[in-house]
Amino acid sequence: MSDQSTNPTPSPAPPTPTGRPPKVSGRGRAAGPSSNSNSDSVDIPEFEPFGVVGPRGLPPLTEFLDIWDVDMMRRPDEINKKRHHTVLYNSENLIVRRGQEFEVKITFSRAYKPTDKIAVEFVIGSNPQYSKGTYIPVFPTKDRQTIWEGRITNTTDNVVTMAITPAANCIVGKYHMYIAVSTPYGIRRTRRDKSRDLYILFNPWVADDAVFLDDEEEREECVMSEMGIIYHGAFDDVAERNWNYGQFNYGVLDACLYILDKSEMPITNRGDPIKVTRKASAMLNSRDDEGVLVGNWSGDYTYGVAPTSWTGSTDILLTFASSRMPVCYAQCWVYAAVFNTFLRCLGIPARVVTNFYSAHDNDGNLKTDIILDEEGRIDRNRTRDSIWNYHCWNECYMSRPDLPTGFGGWQVVDATPQETSDGMYRCGPASVQAIKHGQICYPFDAAFVFAEVNSDVVFYSRSNDGTMEPVKVNQTHVGRMVLTKAPGALTRRDITDQYKFPEGSNEERTVLVKAEEYGCKREKSSLPVADVDLVLPTLEISVGDDFELNVEFKNRSDERRTVDTYISGSIVYYTGVTSSEFLFRNPTVTVGPNKSVKETVVVESKNYMKKLVEQANLNFIVTGKVKETGQIVTAMKVVTLHNPKLTVEVSGPRKVNEEMMATVEFTNPFTFSLEGVFIRMEGPGVMLPKSKYYSLITAGSSLTWTEYFTPQRAGTTRLIASLDCPALRQVYGQVSVTIEP
Amino acid sequence: MSDQSTNPTPSPAPPTPTGRPPKVSGRGRAAGPSSNSNSDSVDIPEFEPFGVVGPRGLPPLTEFLDIWDVDMMRRPDEINKKRHHTVLYNSENLIVRRGQEFEVKITFSRAYKPTDKIAVEFVIGSNPQYSKGTYIPVFPTKDRQTIWEGRITNTTDNVVTMAITPAANCIVGKYHMYIAVSTPYGIRRTRRDKSRDLYILFNPWVADDAVFLDDEEEREECVMSEMGIIYHGAFDDVAERNWNYGQFNYGVLDACLYILDKSEMPITNRGDPIKVTRKASAMLNSRDDEGVLVGNWSGDYTYGVAPTSWTGSTDILLTFASSRMPVCYAQCWVYAAVFNTFLRCLGIPARVVTNFYSAHDNDGNLKTDIILDEEGRIDRNRTRDSIWNYHCWNECYMSRPDLPTGFGGWQVVDATPQETSDGMYRCGPASVQAIKHGQICYPFDAAFVFAEVNSDVVFYSRSNDGTMEPVKVNQTHVGRMVLTKAPGALTRRDITDQYKFPEGSNEERTVLVKAEEYGCKREKSSLPVADVDLVLPTLEISVGDDFELNVEFKNRSDERRTVDTYISGSIVYYTGVTSSEFLFRNPTVTVGPNKSVKETVVVESKNYMKKLVEQANLNFIVTGKVKETGQIVTAMKVVTLHNPKLTVEVSGPRKVNEEMMATVEFTNPFTFSLEGVFIRMEGPGVMLPKSKYYSLITAGSSLTWTEYFTPQRAGTTRLIASLDCPALRQVYGQVSVTIEP
Repeated sequence: MSDQSTNPTPSPAPPTPTGRPPKVSGRGRAAGPSSNSNSDSVDIPEFEPFGVVGPRGLPPLTEFLDIWDVDMMRRPDEINKKRHHTVLYNSENLIVRRGQEFEVKITFSRAYKPTDKIAVEFVIGSNPQYSKGTYIPVFPTKDRQTIWEGRITNTTDNVVTMAITPAANCIVGKYHMYIAVSTPYGIRRTRRDKSRDLYILFNPWVADDAVFLDDEEEREECVMSEMGIIYHGAFDDVAERNWNYGQFNYGVLDACLYILDKSEMPITNRGDPIKVTRKASAMLNSRDDEGVLVGNWSGDYTYGVAPTSWTGSTDILLTFASSRMPVCYAQCWVYAAVFNTFLRCLGIPARVVTNFYSAHDNDGNLKTDIILDEEGRIDRNRTRDSIWNYHCWNECYMSRPDLPTGFGGWQVVDATPQETSDGMYRCGPASVQAIKHGQICYPFDAAFVFAEVNSDVVFYSRSNDGTMEPVKVNQTHVGRMVLTKAPGALTRRDITDQYKFPEGSNEERTVLVKAEEYGCKREKSSLPVADVDLVLPTLEISVGDDFELNVEFKNRSDERRTVDTYISGSIVYYTGVTSSEFLFRNPTVTVGPNKSVKETVVVESKNYMKKLVEQANLNFIVTGKVKETGQIVTAMKVVTLHNPKLTVEVSGPRKVNEEMMATVEFTNPFTFSLEGVFIRMEGPGVMLPKSKYYSLITAGSSLTWTEYFTPQRAGTTRLIASLDCPALRQVYGQVSVTIEP
Repeated sequence: MSDQSTNPTPSPAPPTPTGRPPKVSGRGRAAGPSSNSNSDSVDIPEFEPFGVVGPRGLPPLTEFLDIWDVDMMRRPDEINKKRHHTVLYNSENLIVRRGQEFEVKITFSRAYKPTDKIAVEFVIGSNPQYSKGTYIPVFPTKDRQTIWEGRITNTTDNVVTMAITPAANCIVGKYHMYIAVSTPYGIRRTRRDKSRDLYILFNPWVADDAVFLDDEEEREECVMSEMGIIYHGAFDDVAERNWNYGQFNYGVLDACLYILDKSEMPITNRGDPIKVTRKASAMLNSRDDEGVLVGNWSGDYTYGVAPTSWTGSTDILLTFASSRMPVCYAQCWVYAAVFNTFLRCLGIPARVVTNFYSAHDNDGNLKTDIILDEEGRIDRNRTRDSIWNYHCWNECYMSRPDLPTGFGGWQVVDATPQETSDGMYRCGPASVQAIKHGQICYPFDAAFVFAEVNSDVVFYSRSNDGTMEPVKVNQTHVGRMVLTKAPGALTRRDITDQYKFPEGSNEERTVLVKAEEYGCKREKSSLPVADVDLVLPTLEISVGDDFELNVEFKNRSDERRTVDTYISGSIVYYTGVTSSEFLFRNPTVTVGPNKSVKETVVVESKNYMKKLVEQANLNFIVTGKVKETGQIVTAMKVVTLHNPKLTVEVSGPRKVNEEMMATVEFTNPFTFSLEGVFIRMEGPGVMLPKSKYYSLITAGSSLTWTEYFTPQRAGTTRLIASLDCPALRQVYGQVSVTIEP
């Protein structure tokens, strides 16, 4: 290398700093910071002069029309909250819904004249602009109207009642309000007054709103109800969790807006329910973005609250908003329940649904693989896919202008951090109609949800040389049943038919072909169907019981069949992940032509009790190989063990604002002590979350916990209690209570 | 509150730890860690016994067939790399493309017999499984074939040549290879040998591959060419940047695989070009995920390399792979160029395109707002949207089985971290066909790209009371021209017609209506068209020149027109963001009926030189109000100032493997000194990146830098040089050179 520079001398290059790259400013890239927080705001000046102020200054502006008082009519007994279905929100401020008129009373310094130029101004975010919908002046006269309508409904002396209709697609959040008066010298306006801040929500009652839901019973349930029932367990032995959504509790609305602020979602996108729900599905979990809830399926909840211990959303949301850190811990129903609170609180109709046998698509195909060895016995080391016993997600109701006609209505959103094929911890909104019809090419994540309800279970036989061949495909196991709470009742509603056409119908076949066109791979080898059926019974068993499992072998052939059978019982997490095997038998079963034989396995509690993990599920897999034909037979069954219950009772007057008592009772039914026990209790409209800690409950002993409370409103509601300790989880109790006015 | 527990005493709850939530294990949630790194691997055992080994152990296995040698035929002059178009990769290992046969030679301890049971095994990632495509045995006999075909093409004495065809949809990355022999006691296999590791890439030459591109000239350009030209400047004064993609340089392929490893992308998804390109669009920028390049548009590049200083991708990719930290700094063309290297290196056909006047959709609508005050003068405080003078992204070629028929082919992917409406710093793949036809409902991010080429510029007039009315809509400004390098030539190719139908055509109107159906909002007020046109000239100006700007006023009416005009000249970043105004005039211009008048503005370099930011763009906006009619007239023009150039010359033999010389010359044409000057030089196939630092180049002085180099291969290529210092950026030079074999 040589150097022949005539004049300047090359120098050693200056050292390059190493380590983390420096923070880079936005200069040169954006004209100004974008507004992405509803808590940031600017104060609009109290005076904006027109043109240049002359050398002699301005005349005293008080000569002109002055504002003495503004009444937001924000008390629950005034018309605004009643008309807007926001009476239940525990908030001092006015809360209204968009696309619908509300009224404010303005008291002037003198009688208002039609020639007076006034405007009611609404401002949201730190960078208000009319063209962005973040600054909206509303005028009282017909000739000067903006995107928000204004009119005067009454004038009495100095008092003007002005009616304002926010646009049906306006930004949802907290607005500041000002009254501006135009004088010949400039604009004068009221000073910022926090009591005049108002919240504008989505409006399912108004046809122009994207979340319009034209069914009063559904609206009452999916927007107004705080009382939740979330289904779990097994499709043939469904269990319930009660949940207090608490969307009207003090501070919850602000916490929901804080979630959007923490996500740095631009203010201007916050009128679009598609964008709001998609962003929230990412923010409800802590992955990627330090969102609301930390997922934990490990069984070790030492550093937080066990997912099974929560009884409602209020504690979680208020803790997140005050600590500004993710809350520990959640599993799928906790994500779905808190997400439901968020949605209902902002006015988006929403419900929690449970899918029984939910496939977890961890590598983007439509198969769950179970690997058997050459003898037909399950190979646990090589079986890596899992099927969740159940999985909860949310549905929310909205139109989908971004998709072709027909895909509006219920949309799946899911905040549980699963690895979707798109690689981010968020999911949806995905149109339920699109899922049902296999139109999985439309955003967002429809293919992922489709797989959750439609995957095949494929059994492979692995030979010694490492190759594998499919030997059986079960197309009906996954997505066995989808449930949600029925509107206006405490019963369940089967909505499987909204996700799938009936198994075996022509429509179902068409949908699967359609989905394959969009790249869903299925196992299509035509496999011989075995002529021996295995049937496992439906069982309802309590924790600690010994019981019998009868495996029925039905021979549909005209010849004798001999089946080398492997019966394996193991403890599984509700995610389908195996914890440990507690039972193994390998009988050889002989069945005569067209006969049926039952093989009975005795399951003793001493074998499973010590190995139980939190949700106490026993998973039985029976596999076998028919000697005469080489056919593979299989059957699977999850048995959810029933836990002991809490007794909850109430006593006292049962009247609004009169103190009464709730008592929780529990007896430890086991032969061992329970340590580190938390009991929680709360109830929609009657009791905020309470908890009590007991370091020890010895075998056989009982506890009674009594708590006083004062109902805030009339109607039928529930008190919900949970008991939780490392050795025993998901013990629940509840009591219905009707409060008189 | 009272407490009446009979037996256990409630205790104070144990303290809850505060601060960051603890790390949570995956236990209970997944059956095993998913494999998401191509650098992790397991060694497969050298012996896998069948069944249980008896008490006397095994007989000596060397009695059976033994493997003495494996020849991967990996030299560039052997058939594998030639047939697979991978000769140019500077790598010791075998590199082949999927869906196409390659050969290996196996030398056994004795002659191979058809009854010998052997398998060639391929393994990728840490959790190899046949059903996941991460463990693939290949057999030589027809009766036992797997998803990868195998056959014996030659047998000579102890040497067997085996031909293997990887599935056309197999995982792309680095595989380990083993030879397994089945003995009666179990499987014996070769020990792991790194020289037998092989890379399998995407294959645009094979019809079954999703990236098949049936055009040899396009393949040569978009897969095999290292020489890039990236367009910038203005649509009527296009400038070029030369770029060395360097996809075949030593270490670049490993760096590209490391990018996917760092993203933790599951190995099983790495055969799908849709998922690979989407993930890579997120990983090429450092936002969210500590990816390859840190964006910086601020003008201050003290702690890294100025975006304008890079001459190729090699330095960037090798630095990222060795430091494992993001590299500083990039702007759009750097993201696009490095992304292009990534795509071509893995075998996905790709090109860099430049869109002139690219709208930046920062709040999800199809409008860019420019706010004028009541007199028609631009209100810079309230004008927040910007239009990038140009923006670079990538197109890559693939089928789209996830979408309806017709949307395969070129797909837009963009690694520049812009806030898409979906909120993540990634973009695409979005079908160019879908964008052209307004079918923006299909994933991924088609609506965002549609807005980049189709937004309207809306001029609003803001009145004193804060309301705004649209006064003019310009529907042709944005997306004025889309360019890419022509295949096999050093010229440009206009591909605007692949994104848009001709302006004003029926098809164009249909597309805009279609896009509106999918929620794209447009300004639809029917505005009066002014009868005075403003025309700004096309100018080619060098930095430091004084020049005249002639603003032409064309009166199309039959009456006299008087226009109160505001002519504003400002320095803008290439992102359209205004740095500072250097010129302002407000003449009143009178034009007779059907006449034309020119208003001349003299622009002096002393006014703009001190305010220049790096890319030296002058933005002229002319607005005005016609007195007689109140109509608003507007015109906009970006003038890109031309920089001085570097002279690059070569001398010497111009033959492969013979040393020659390159000389860079530069004279400082300014009246001020240049400080902190970096010069860089490199050339595809001839020179790896070199750089030189000069602390000072005084006014008028010259430098000469000579570098020796040895061409590695024959053909026509270029040497590319850049000069960069804080006071003067994007000074480039290049020279073509043809190397004889």
